[in-house]
Amino acid sequence: MKAIVTGAAGFIGSTLVDRLLAEGHDVTGFDNFSTGFRQFLEGALVHPRFRLIEGDLLDLDAVKHAVAGADFVFHLGANADVRFGPDHPRRDLDQNAIATWNVLEAMRRTGVRRIAFSSTGSVYGEHHVFPTPEDAAFPVQTSLYGASKLAAEGLISAYAAAFEFRTFIFRFVSILGERYTHGHVFDFYRQLLAHPDRLDVLGNGHQRKSYLYVQDCVSAILLATSTCTAPVNIFNLGAAEYCEVNDSIGWIAGHLGLKPELRYAGGERGWIGDSPFIFLDCSRMRALGWTPKLTIQQGIIRTLEFLQANRWVLDTRK
Amino acid sequence: MKAIVTGAAGFIGSTLVDRLLAEGHDVTGFDNFSTGFRQFLEGALVHPRFRLIEGDLLDLDAVKHAVAGADFVFHLGANADVRFGPDHPRRDLDQNAIATWNVLEAMRRTGVRRIAFSSTGSVYGEHHVFPTPEDAAFPVQTSLYGASKLAAEGLISAYAAAFEFRTFIFRFVSILGERYTHGHVFDFYRQLLAHPDRLDVLGNGHQRKSYLYVQDCVSAILLATSTCTAPVNIFNLGAAEYCEVNDSIGWIAGHLGLKPELRYAGGERGWIGDSPFIFLDCSRMRALGWTPKLTIQQGIIRTLEFLQANRWVLDTRK
Repeated sequence: MKAIVTGAAGFIGSTLVDRLLAEGHDVTGFDNFSTGFRQFLEGALVHPRFRLIEGDLLDLDAVKHAVAGADFVFHLGANADVRFGPDHPRRDLDQNAIATWNVLEAMRRTGVRRIAFSSTGSVYGEHHVFPTPEDAAFPVQTSLYGASKLAAEGLISAYAAAFEFRTFIFRFVSILGERYTHGHVFDFYRQLLAHPDRLDVLGNGHQRKSYLYVQDCVSAILLATSTCTAPVNIFNLGAAEYCEVNDSIGWIAGHLGLKPELRYAGGERGWIGDSPFIFLDCSRMRALGWTPKLTIQQGIIRTLEFLQANRWVLDTRK
Repeated sequence: MKAIVTGAAGFIGSTLVDRLLAEGHDVTGFDNFSTGFRQFLEGALVHPRFRLIEGDLLDLDAVKHAVAGADFVFHLGANADVRFGPDHPRRDLDQNAIATWNVLEAMRRTGVRRIAFSSTGSVYGEHHVFPTPEDAAFPVQTSLYGASKLAAEGLISAYAAAFEFRTFIFRFVSILGERYTHGHVFDFYRQLLAHPDRLDVLGNGHQRKSYLYVQDCVSAILLATSTCTAPVNIFNLGAAEYCEVNDSIGWIAGHLGLKPELRYAGGERGWIGDSPFIFLDCSRMRALGWTPKLTIQQGIIRTLEFLQANRWVLDTRK
């Protein structure tokens, strides 16, 4: 198969690139390196079946050029940070919704008809059903990030109906593991390097979240996309468990051998649009035979070990 | 109140303008006249409390200028035709999603915080629950039109969460009545003027749809927006009944005294993205004391009478 991966230099994208190459596929990576890292493609770049295209998803011609001739587009390029929407109200719309339209339109114009998309559990807003299934009650959006991902989902489904695409929408919880470059483990570890005796925590520490190890995430994507044939296939992807932010702090501090003073900002939510409880019902994905291999705790430790071995990553983000 | 109405020269927009003026409000109409009619604003244009701004919703500066100083934005400007999405895959995204983002952003930058939005029952896709309530199971989009309206809904809700907007989302069935300028009554009447002995019908005639008379629609909007104070208020708007396309044909032909031969294109759907059954649960709106005054049949007859008295409208659409 000839596969395109957008966001190929990102955390999940680069992991998917490596797995696709290992499975024997031809892979074109597409990335604008706005948040991705060339280092994550070190292995791929010396692989004979890998090709890198530097380009922006907002440049329709560049996207058309990249996807022409592909069998499958794995569209992971996105603004992946849920937290700063209110500071940049256009960014999510551009990088998630309009970029996705460009990918779809580039595919339509070049005759490519299969796409997988990295959506988010944030599209459920602050739901009242846990674990939340894919067909939960019609949610109300609470973040620009979730809204822009939902917009992309809608466009993808509409293209499936209008132009006979086969589409895969994966609603992720937060993903953990090697090449992780933003999120609470990143923030906490950086803080503890700077001041091992204290940790500032957004919210009250009781936010409950589910997580998933990146290789388990990629395994699910590869399994579903090679198995399912419906026009629209929607899957939640997450662990069968959740933890409190405080649990995560305990594991991180324990791994580092620290006992920091915890300073809570307070409130149920870590930021505007934060959902105090995210826990997805993944039985639809499990019915395909998938099961995560790592627990949340194991995923957090792997993440820490990666950051400890790759301190340069910490220096690249504000 | 100082109200802005986008799409002010359109079918529903111009009707809302007249009602707001009649209630004593100051009204600014905003329209680019791409599909609106100056004739629909004849009364408003001579009213001392009405101001018209010709501008495009894709021009953020123009929108900012229009909304500055307003108390309430009634955002009805849109691509309102569900049928031709696949012919113009970018149009719905531009005119529904991005235009709505411009309105929200213009409001944010000028300190305006209340908005009502004309969404659509098409956001339910091909649902399996009838009548369909606002919190029906998370739908899968089947049209670019529905997807773009859902994108706008999501942005509106996210702005409510991020910037303390008070927002109103109305999911319309097809609206009927005076100033109606596109849709099946329009198409059928024009056909029957050209050839009274036959009528080409999209689909098999058994598509089931609900409709609502435009004055009943505007009454609901005015009631909900003056009553509800939640950050996000979502209401279905439709009649408590539905009819088959064949019922509608019978009423139209009967009113015109014709017995045309019916030529069905066949199939469950009239076009790509058509939903074979649209019937919304409007009990949430009814709980506010609202009830439609006209039946679907009465609405269709009013529509026909308007078109008979305003044949110029028929000449303006391809």
